[in-house]
Amino acid sequence: MDFSSKLLENAVNEISQLPGIGKRTALRLALHLLKQPEQQTQRLSKSLLKMREEINFCANCHNISDTRLCEICANPNRDESIVCVVEDIRDVMAIENTSQFRGHYHVLGGKISPMDGVGPGDLNITTLVQKVANGNIKELIFALSSTMEGDTTNFYLFKQIEGHNIVTTTIARGISVGDELEYADEVTLGRSIVNRIPFESSLKSS
Amino acid sequence: MDFSSKLLENAVNEISQLPGIGKRTALRLALHLLKQPEQQTQRLSKSLLKMREEINFCANCHNISDTRLCEICANPNRDESIVCVVEDIRDVMAIENTSQFRGHYHVLGGKISPMDGVGPGDLNITTLVQKVANGNIKELIFALSSTMEGDTTNFYLFKQIEGHNIVTTTIARGISVGDELEYADEVTLGRSIVNRIPFESSLKSS
Repeated sequence: MDFSSKLLENAVNEISQLPGIGKRTALRLALHLLKQPEQQTQRLSKSLLKMREEINFCANCHNISDTRLCEICANPNRDESIVCVVEDIRDVMAIENTSQFRGHYHVLGGKISPMDGVGPGDLNITTLVQKVANGNIKELIFALSSTMEGDTTNFYLFKQIEGHNIVTTTIARGISVGDELEYADEVTLGRSIVNRIPFESSLKSS
Repeated sequence: MDFSSKLLENAVNEISQLPGIGKRTALRLALHLLKQPEQQTQRLSKSLLKMREEINFCANCHNISDTRLCEICANPNRDESIVCVVEDIRDVMAIENTSQFRGHYHVLGGKISPMDGVGPGDLNITTLVQKVANGNIKELIFALSSTMEGDTTNFYLFKQIEGHNIVTTTIARGISVGDELEYADEVTLGRSIVNRIPFESSLKSS
């Protein structure tokens, strides 16, 4: 694309570095900002810079937090002996929205993915192993996404904490509530049959 | 959404002000920036601010330009007596890409659209009328998009410059090159029949 302005070109190049945003969308966004009052661009720029420079992570669970301990870890009503292992803050938000979990989280910050250059050393794994070794945890729930990378990470974690006397569980995979069987993929349907649960316990959760 | 950090929440709110970006996408973009080196966010913020604060518009055609006159208006090889009226810089870029136009542009900065609160006073219309009144323009090409707003704007401009001795044309609407007739919409096909051109002149442009 041949921009008539270096300023516009720079902005478009930077915007299009963001995931899922190409040059055309970047140009559309830049032109939008030019039509809006200058304050909007100032607020956007400042909030991005401030977030990037001042962001903090909870000292206990590594979730994004403005305080040393996040709200969940600081809440005395939550059960710190049950820890749910998730990938990032979006998973914490999703699980919190269900109101079905009253334990703590541990945010790994990603999944082991050699293809993307992410090894175990890049994730918050040592602190998790340390927490388990300290003996305060009774149950560890693996709640990573059900992909090859998620399964690899689960298995790596499982191996790291093997030998400690704790229960490890993984969230149930199966047919979504409201889904029809005939449209479900066969892997999910297969898993939901293998991992069937007593009918009485299915009544509890609804 | 319940964010655990005010900094993250602010950034997500500002990002989601952009057109076509919802809260979820904004969160994804913010988390992406947090994973990237701090420099990327700094470059992005600075380029946006710099663009918004220092952007200039060509004194002649109102296109975005870093200099007083844009490259096109400053080019002595271009014919200033033919002026193509467009909506914004994207249209200039699109037409320039065709290499079929050697005249000047006039960037209106939008279309008349009462629904969006855009009246004739919000567009660069008076300078265009002035240019026509000065008598330097032989032909005015209306190249706005073929929507109700585009047609309204065309008509308003036409009325404004009526009485001056210039030719006004509009870009041809018709079947796209390579398109099959049976899939064309009937309005476009109808127009392409009404506005048919001599066969010999169709040979020139290919």
